[in-house]
Amino acid sequence: MKKIHKAVMLIIDGLGDRPIDEFGGLTPLEAARTPCFDMLARGGITGLMDPLSPGIRVGTDVGHLALFGYNPLKVYWGRGPIEAVGVGINLRPGDVALRCNFATVDENFVIINRRAGRIRNTAPLAAALDNMSLGDGMRAIFKPATEHRAVLVLSGDRLSAEITNSDPGPVSEGEPVREVKPKHPGQPLAEKTARLVNEFVRKSYEILRDHEMNKERLKKGLPPANIVITRGAGMAVKMRSLTERFDIKGCCVTGESTIAGVAQMAGFSVLMNEKLTANIDTDLDEKARLTLEGLKTADLVVTHIKGVDLVAHDHRPREKLAFIEKTDQMLQKIIDGLDDPQDTFVAVTADHSTPCVIGEHSADPVPVLIHGEGVLVDEVRSYGERACARGGLCRIRANDFLLSLLDLMGVTYRFGS
Amino acid sequence: MKKIHKAVMLIIDGLGDRPIDEFGGLTPLEAARTPCFDMLARGGITGLMDPLSPGIRVGTDVGHLALFGYNPLKVYWGRGPIEAVGVGINLRPGDVALRCNFATVDENFVIINRRAGRIRNTAPLAAALDNMSLGDGMRAIFKPATEHRAVLVLSGDRLSAEITNSDPGPVSEGEPVREVKPKHPGQPLAEKTARLVNEFVRKSYEILRDHEMNKERLKKGLPPANIVITRGAGMAVKMRSLTERFDIKGCCVTGESTIAGVAQMAGFSVLMNEKLTANIDTDLDEKARLTLEGLKTADLVVTHIKGVDLVAHDHRPREKLAFIEKTDQMLQKIIDGLDDPQDTFVAVTADHSTPCVIGEHSADPVPVLIHGEGVLVDEVRSYGERACARGGLCRIRANDFLLSLLDLMGVTYRFGS
Repeated sequence: MKKIHKAVMLIIDGLGDRPIDEFGGLTPLEAARTPCFDMLARGGITGLMDPLSPGIRVGTDVGHLALFGYNPLKVYWGRGPIEAVGVGINLRPGDVALRCNFATVDENFVIINRRAGRIRNTAPLAAALDNMSLGDGMRAIFKPATEHRAVLVLSGDRLSAEITNSDPGPVSEGEPVREVKPKHPGQPLAEKTARLVNEFVRKSYEILRDHEMNKERLKKGLPPANIVITRGAGMAVKMRSLTERFDIKGCCVTGESTIAGVAQMAGFSVLMNEKLTANIDTDLDEKARLTLEGLKTADLVVTHIKGVDLVAHDHRPREKLAFIEKTDQMLQKIIDGLDDPQDTFVAVTADHSTPCVIGEHSADPVPVLIHGEGVLVDEVRSYGERACARGGLCRIRANDFLLSLLDLMGVTYRFGS
Repeated sequence: MKKIHKAVMLIIDGLGDRPIDEFGGLTPLEAARTPCFDMLARGGITGLMDPLSPGIRVGTDVGHLALFGYNPLKVYWGRGPIEAVGVGINLRPGDVALRCNFATVDENFVIINRRAGRIRNTAPLAAALDNMSLGDGMRAIFKPATEHRAVLVLSGDRLSAEITNSDPGPVSEGEPVREVKPKHPGQPLAEKTARLVNEFVRKSYEILRDHEMNKERLKKGLPPANIVITRGAGMAVKMRSLTERFDIKGCCVTGESTIAGVAQMAGFSVLMNEKLTANIDTDLDEKARLTLEGLKTADLVVTHIKGVDLVAHDHRPREKLAFIEKTDQMLQKIIDGLDDPQDTFVAVTADHSTPCVIGEHSADPVPVLIHGEGVLVDEVRSYGERACARGGLCRIRANDFLLSLLDLMGVTYRFGS
C-alpha cells in the first residue's frame, strides 16, 4: 500500500491585491505582519497561481471549482446549483436552481434595499415559502443560505435554466424587480420556467409582506424582507467527484454556502456552524478547531476564509491587512495543533485577487505556497504577490496547484506505464 | 533555402528528484559533480519542464511521447503497440499488441518468478512461440524485447484491445496467472481477443516447459522461463510522424525497446546494439559514439539514458548521483566529438522525475536546458531542479520544449502569414 500524507489547504478568498499608496506601494499582504505565512514560505515552495488562466477574472464559484479539481470551462453550471448543494439540497440532473436574495420593495415592486439590510436568520421566512405550490402542478423548494441569501429549486425534467434574472443587479435601489424571461425567444421550456419563477417571486411578496418577522423588523426600523428576487439560474449535471477520482477523504471548513456547495460536489464533507459567519465577525478560533477536527478523519482539509474578500470589495485596505494578520494567526494555531506536523502538508492559496483600489475581482495571479516533507524549498523568504513570483513553482494554474499538492500527498496515479 | 541547424537532445530517464537527507537536502542532480551540464547551463537557457502538465504523473511511454512531439492525451495507445514498434514489428491499424514477460510458474500456473530471474537473450524461446497457430485461423507474432520482456501481436480487423491482463501485476509471486477477460462484458470482439490471448498463454507453457534452454537453466539452478504472461493491450492507430511534420531526419540512440518504439513511431531511425543494456551496466562510450554517428546523417539525435531511473526506483540515491555523473561525462565526450560544435544545439531534459525517497515516478517538473547559437542565455549557473526554476524558459511543457528546440534549429514553420 502506498503511503498517503495529509494536507491542509487554506483558501483566502480575494487575497491578491495591487499596490496601495498608504502602504508605500505595498499590497495589503506584503504590508501585513504574517510570521506564520512567511515561515511556511521560507521552508516551502512558492509561486504564482492563475485561478483559471492569465487575464481571466473569475467569480468565487469558478475560482473554487478550479481549486477543487474541476475544469470550470467544462463543468460550470451557474451559481444556482452550487448554492443549492451548499444548503443541503440533493439536486437531480434536470433540476433548475437559482440564487435568491431576500430584499425590500415598495408596493410597486421598486427595490428599496436589495439585501433587506443584510438580514440574518431568515429560516422562519424561508419556511413560509418552502414547498410552495406553483402552476403546472410544480412545487418550489426554497432554503435559506448565508445572511440575506437563499436558494430556489424547481424540480422536473421539462425545465430550462436559460432564463434572465428578476434581481436587477448590484446597484439596483430605485429600480423595479424585473420580469424573468427566456434568454432567447421561442424556447418553450425556458418560457415555462420563467413563468414559474415569476409566479414564485410574486407569491413571495404576498406571503412575506405580512409575516410576523417583518412586522417586528418594521417596529425596530429595519427594512422588511418582503420579497425574494432571483438570479444565476443553472441546471444540475452529473460529475465525478475529486474524492472519488483520487480515493481520498476530503473535509471543508467554511461559513459560506457557495463554498460548501462546491466542496460537497467535490465529495467533501463540510464542517460549518453558526460561529462561522463568512464575514469579518467570524470565529477564527472555531475555524482552527474545526480544521483540526477534520484532519482526524480526512486526508485533505480545505479551510476557507471569506472576510478578506468582503473588505476588499468595500475598498478597505487597512481592514484587509488586519484580517490577513488574523488569518495568519489562525493558521499558526492550526499548525500548533497538528497531530503529526512532519507528515502534514500545509498549502496556502486564494480563489482570486480582489484589489482594494478597484473593489472588484481582478485577473491578477495570487501567491501560493506548499510546505511539507519533500518539497524543493526555494529562496523566497516571505509570502506575497511579488516575492512568490520568484518561487520554485513558477506560475501555474489552480487545477495544477491542487494536483501538485495531491501528488506530494502521494494520492495521484500514473498516466502510462 | 532555410538553414537548418543540428541538435542533440539528451533524455535522462527519471532524472528529477526531491531533497535527500544524506546529501544535506540536495537532490542527486544538485549534489552530483556535473561540469558539462553546468557549463551548458551557464552558456544556455534553462527552465522547468512538466512532462504533461503540473501535478500529472506520467509513465516512461507517455513522457517520451510528449518529448517526441505527440499529445499523449490524444494519441496514447497503451504500451503494447509502442513496444511492438520498438522491437521492429510493422503494425497495421487494427492490430492488437501486448507487452509480455517471460515468467516462471508451477504446474498449477501459480507465479514463482514474474520475470524468470530477469532472463536475458530470450531469442531461442521467442522463436519457439513466434508464428503460433491459434483459433479462428489466427497466427501470433511474438518477438523478444529487453531482458525478460517480449511482445505479442494479433493481426486482424475484428479484434479489440479492451481486455484485461493475464499478468497479475508487479508483486504477484504466489498468485495464479489470470484469465484474460473483456474489460466490459458483452463485447464480442473483446471476448474473441481474450480467448485468443488465453490460448496463447496456455500454449506458451506447453511449448516452453520442455524447451532445451529451460532444461539448461534448471541445471544451473536458474528459474525456467516456462510461460509468457501478458499486459498493456493496445490497438495501433495511424499518426503523422514528427519527422514528416517538420521534414527533418531524426535518429534515436537507446537500449530500451519502449523508447525505440516511440522514436520509430515519430519517424526516427534507431541506433541500438547489445552494448546498450538499458541498465547501469550499459556502455556509455558506445552511446556517445552512436550519437556522433547519428549526427552525420540526422538533423536531430535523441540519446536516452535509462540507468538513472532504475536506481531511483530502487531507492538508491548514491547510485543515482554516480550514474548522473557518468552521464555528464558521456555528454562531454559527445560535445568533444562534434564536427561542428558552433552549429549544433545541445539540449538536456528528462521524461519525468523519480524521487529516490518514494521510488516511484512523481509529477515534479524536471530541469531542462538548451545550449547553442542564438539562445537568450539566462543567469542560471548550474543544472539542477531549483537552479533551473529561475531560468529563462520559465516553466513549460514537454511538447513545448521540443518545439522550442526545433524552432531554434530553424525547422518550424509559420502559423499565419
